[in-house]
Amino acid sequence: MENFNFYSPTEFVFGKGRENECGEYVVKYGGSNVLLHYGSGSAVRSGLIDRVKASLEKSGVRYTELGGVQANPRDTLVYKGIDICRRDGVDFILAVGGGSVIDSAKAIAIGVPYDGDFWDFYTGKHADKALPVGTVLTIAAAGSEGSGDSVITKEDGMLKRGTGSDVLRPRFSVLDPALTQTLPAYQTACGATDIMAHVFERYFTNTREVEITDRLCEAVLMTMVKETPRVIADPDNYEARANIMWAGMVAHNNIVGVGREQDWNSHGIEHELSGLYDCAHGAGLAVIMPAWMEFVYKHDVMRFCQMATRVFGVKMNFADPETTALAGIKAFRTFLHSIGMPINFAELGAKEEDIPVLVEKLGLGDGETGGFVHLKSADVAEIYRIAVRAEL
Amino acid sequence: MENFNFYSPTEFVFGKGRENECGEYVVKYGGSNVLLHYGSGSAVRSGLIDRVKASLEKSGVRYTELGGVQANPRDTLVYKGIDICRRDGVDFILAVGGGSVIDSAKAIAIGVPYDGDFWDFYTGKHADKALPVGTVLTIAAAGSEGSGDSVITKEDGMLKRGTGSDVLRPRFSVLDPALTQTLPAYQTACGATDIMAHVFERYFTNTREVEITDRLCEAVLMTMVKETPRVIADPDNYEARANIMWAGMVAHNNIVGVGREQDWNSHGIEHELSGLYDCAHGAGLAVIMPAWMEFVYKHDVMRFCQMATRVFGVKMNFADPETTALAGIKAFRTFLHSIGMPINFAELGAKEEDIPVLVEKLGLGDGETGGFVHLKSADVAEIYRIAVRAEL
Repeated sequence: MENFNFYSPTEFVFGKGRENECGEYVVKYGGSNVLLHYGSGSAVRSGLIDRVKASLEKSGVRYTELGGVQANPRDTLVYKGIDICRRDGVDFILAVGGGSVIDSAKAIAIGVPYDGDFWDFYTGKHADKALPVGTVLTIAAAGSEGSGDSVITKEDGMLKRGTGSDVLRPRFSVLDPALTQTLPAYQTACGATDIMAHVFERYFTNTREVEITDRLCEAVLMTMVKETPRVIADPDNYEARANIMWAGMVAHNNIVGVGREQDWNSHGIEHELSGLYDCAHGAGLAVIMPAWMEFVYKHDVMRFCQMATRVFGVKMNFADPETTALAGIKAFRTFLHSIGMPINFAELGAKEEDIPVLVEKLGLGDGETGGFVHLKSADVAEIYRIAVRAEL
Repeated sequence: MENFNFYSPTEFVFGKGRENECGEYVVKYGGSNVLLHYGSGSAVRSGLIDRVKASLEKSGVRYTELGGVQANPRDTLVYKGIDICRRDGVDFILAVGGGSVIDSAKAIAIGVPYDGDFWDFYTGKHADKALPVGTVLTIAAAGSEGSGDSVITKEDGMLKRGTGSDVLRPRFSVLDPALTQTLPAYQTACGATDIMAHVFERYFTNTREVEITDRLCEAVLMTMVKETPRVIADPDNYEARANIMWAGMVAHNNIVGVGREQDWNSHGIEHELSGLYDCAHGAGLAVIMPAWMEFVYKHDVMRFCQMATRVFGVKMNFADPETTALAGIKAFRTFLHSIGMPINFAELGAKEEDIPVLVEKLGLGDGETGGFVHLKSADVAEIYRIAVRAEL
């Protein structure tokens, strides 16, 4: 096990109806004048924003609204948010939505107290100061409600870049599983895929002797394998939604990933797909992650056998472990298909002839990535080609 | 799943040699004048206290020392600590030791800013103010390094009482597995038993639909089953020590216990044993917990089958599930025996004829406890009797 720090100071406020308490939590964490940040309409139409406003008013908290966050949240709205916060003396940002809204809120939060361009933090600068952020989560997926990460897209050139700092961890996050019951099955499945991917990016490691985090990773994965089909079959299943929502937080606040080298190449390779085709991140991961697994499994067959047997209940073939490893990857892909995810380029709407462009945009050039298996541009191209050919 | 709040703001500083950074963390969390609190000698003899002092001095932090914390930490030393802190204007308490030292430090921390008697907090009053506490942990067991709990014994009458508040959660906790390598096998095994008990107290629940926390509980338990025999066989095994140390934190900061009714009756029943015989808490739990399981398993046979099959690899007997449940309990007791723990009254040094006294001291009278199965005094007596008779 490697040395590590783990710090997750967010207060999680979990359960049915808890969004009605968000005013109290804003006050508890020092807010009196809030930027109420949200997306493009569903939170308004569902009445959620009204309930949040009522809670803020009840607690005597003033607010200014800024809606309109898009998927792959843009820098342009961040600049607008920073201006509003400075103009109105905002002291707390409340994000109501999914990962995009929360990421946008975090970007505004580091931009307000900074004299320069907030984009500096997305091109290498480390943030050590930010306005406090709280969240009311509406989809189990990105894990931004418990992480210190934020990903923003610069409209000029559609550059997607991330930043991370402990000052970006939300002060509190309201997780009400009932808010996710209205999500369409496709979005639910995309979220579930993202959650599983967050675990797999940590699971495949070259660090030895990490039994506790291996087991914690597998706990989240097995939960997703059990609970996701239940919400796809019955979107109103509160209990399954609740298990998935907490799993989504556990998957990404890093409690399952400490003390071990992590990978994250599938996320990078996927980002180019959602960048080029504007597809959902989770859908792109469903296509890329099993393809990545097929490309790298020979690097550590036993680790893939461990996944296959422990997570997917594959029987170990002691005479030919590679068949077990491959059966595990196949079980994962079959699972993704069963919850309605695309499993190859065609189903995603991606084109084989774009592979050179995708590889070019990833920008490895003659270099390579780090992680479980280091990848060069030619390797990435092969992973895309595996994803073209993938079948059940 | 039930509604819940989860809040674990401690920064965990994990790994070899990290105690040499504790001065920096004291400063980071606002300390400049520290009460350095520790136990009865081993931390001094090993040179750990000297390294901690050197780190404090390097960071320009002043300190006053207060050693001498005993197992089952006493109120008398807490009063002394409160006086010292007030006299010297201490602004941060650094506990170097195990659960007892940390619990004592927490008691001092709530006592200093309080006008009345600190014992008020151990008899029902809720603490909302405390000096900040940091820890350097020397044994994986109690989980106090990540919890808001503290248990103190009042010397007058030997009353053991606890308190809990988020203000008692440490600001930072240094977890260096290498510090535990010098622990005797017996203490190591007692700590491991305590860790597993912390999970079982959460695992046996009447709350339905808690797959994620079930799986997380099982992850910790399986890790302990794998890693504990390795450190008993080879005390210098850093990697196994590291897995156990992180498992001990995960087992008790409540990430594995949220959203579900918990039990804690075994802890209560054990406290009377360690109170009367001054035995180690973990050793008492090794005797009581399987006995409690045998007393209650018929309440939910399938939950015990789940434990048996998932944690201990018992084959499910579909024709007679009770045999599977009992085989799981037997596997747990056999495991405890294999790591050197006592499994019945005689091995612990407890006496059957004291059972009426133990039951009387527990103080249920004509009432009952809450939890997985509600217990009356007669039930507790029967659990003690099962513990008398227990064999492999």
